[in-house]
Amino acid sequence: MMYALDLIGIAVFAISGAMAARQLQMDPFGSLILAGVTAIGGGTLRDLLLGITPFWIDDHNYLYVIAVTAFITMIWPLTRGWPYRILNVADAFGLALFTIMGMSRALSAEVSITVAVVMGVMTGVAGGMIRDLLSGQVPLILRREIYATASLAGALTYAGLHHLAFEWHASVAIGMLVTLVVRLSAIRWKLTLPTLTHNT
Amino acid sequence: MMYALDLIGIAVFAISGAMAARQLQMDPFGSLILAGVTAIGGGTLRDLLLGITPFWIDDHNYLYVIAVTAFITMIWPLTRGWPYRILNVADAFGLALFTIMGMSRALSAEVSITVAVVMGVMTGVAGGMIRDLLSGQVPLILRREIYATASLAGALTYAGLHHLAFEWHASVAIGMLVTLVVRLSAIRWKLTLPTLTHNT
Amino acid sequence: MMYALDLIGIAVFAISGAMAARQLQMDPFGSLILAGVTAIGGGTLRDLLLGITPFWIDDHNYLYVIAVTAFITMIWPLTRGWPYRILNVADAFGLALFTIMGMSRALSAEVSITVAVVMGVMTGVAGGMIRDLLSGQVPLILRREIYATASLAGALTYAGLHHLAFEWHASVAIGMLVTLVVRLSAIRWKLTLPTLTHNT
Repeated sequence: MMYALDLIGIAVFAISGAMAARQLQMDPFGSLILAGVTAIGGGTLRDLLLGITPFWIDDHNYLYVIAVTAFITMIWPLTRGWPYRILNVADAFGLALFTIMGMSRALSAEVSITVAVVMGVMTGVAGGMIRDLLSGQVPLILRREIYATASLAGALTYAGLHHLAFEWHASVAIGMLVTLVVRLSAIRWKLTLPTLTHNT
Repeated sequence: MMYALDLIGIAVFAISGAMAARQLQMDPFGSLILAGVTAIGGGTLRDLLLGITPFWIDDHNYLYVIAVTAFITMIWPLTRGWPYRILNVADAFGLALFTIMGMSRALSAEVSITVAVVMGVMTGVAGGMIRDLLSGQVPLILRREIYATASLAGALTYAGLHHLAFEWHASVAIGMLVTLVVRLSAIRWKLTLPTLTHNT
Repeated sequence: MMYALDLIGIAVFAISGAMAARQLQMDPFGSLILAGVTAIGGGTLRDLLLGITPFWIDDHNYLYVIAVTAFITMIWPLTRGWPYRILNVADAFGLALFTIMGMSRALSAEVSITVAVVMGVMTGVAGGMIRDLLSGQVPLILRREIYATASLAGALTYAGLHHLAFEWHASVAIGMLVTLVVRLSAIRWKLTLPTLTHNT
């Protein structure tokens, strides 16, 4: 179950990376690299910090999923106007999945719940941040669009349910749903959090 | 003693990250992430390279200091014109502290003095470089403002004192002072090193 | 033999980093850092992912080669017009060397051939990507110039020869040659791969 979700998350972020590459008119292998970095960047960073072998080294399915998904994304016919919206929605799904999967993996490596929240948010946002940096864009999380906030909301929800010893599958589903709803609402109604500053 | 300095360094860099976020009008949780990445980025990289557990995983105080400092920085009332100058000075303090603390930690992991100098400079400059990259700016170190040079000057001073078996507290203080004086002088009098090139 | 090639690869990428720094009019120690990050970035990432100590920590020759090469690059007199072309050719050599050296090192750490290809391409392209990011440029690999493709072509050639149990020195030479020919041809005749998309 967790494994299937992980593969779906990888596919979703690979799509978002390959779509960013498509907008930049990159060649197929450059696209593959951008898709790969987006998909495995966050999880790889998490595993390095936890001191465990990066998840894609002992299991080739992740790399195969990235290659296939990136290729399909490259050749998929699109009508004009779609790409940006799809990219945002794919990104929201990936954010939700990776935040909760990252927390779950961190907790099974026996770190504290505080560190697990940090790891979850990092797993969720790092891949997309690297994708945006490599695309020459200011990362999504810096664009006042309730991006990190959505990840954190899901992570704290999951942390609470974990603390209450809630059933795992339900906790994962609810945690993901919170992130998704917050992020998609922010996109749909262009919500932003107020900044806390007085000046400027 | 070293622990207190470490926490101060974390706070100072968290401030510099949160102030950069403030100038970009980021939302609170995006600011928190930028503050966190700036504060723990360099030290985390150092610990990964040394093969030891990142310093913030087993000790939550670092994360709490970041959260509190970032929050205060967000709500602190500022008169116009201050931010850029404060950001630069906070950054100089962080650079000095992290360079020497990074070297000290590398030496206690029993690497050579040459590698320790590299680790010190890396600990000092990496967090700020990541902050600048994520803010969509060319990193400070690339702006011909004697930034890396200040870090290196302090690191070499500390290396010399360490080699001479100088007392630890004094070595730390002198090493930091060298970096601070070099960096703040460069800011104050707009000093630059000559480039070594003949052409252009 | 492998050691000598490794040092040459380091020198070549240090040159490419120092030349990028020169174009940005960076000061000497900023240049040194950019040269160093470009030279050891890819290999350091590979070693972290393989869970082994980064190659430059136990052997100072790498750091010395970087320092000397970067210094020579800074003071080398150049006639106008040369820099960009030299930078591209130095980069192509480094790409070829690091791709094959990275694969070779990954294979000796006993990962699968698929992961070794990923590691090889990563070792080849990561240093240059970091250099471009820090220089405020969109990375070379994103500029539709058959960059990642050249690395992948060499990596797959080497993988095939390794699978056929071909002699090591010859495999290294042929793998590097494939990357070099593909990359230099792309530069010389401004070749690009077609993108696979229908729209836009």
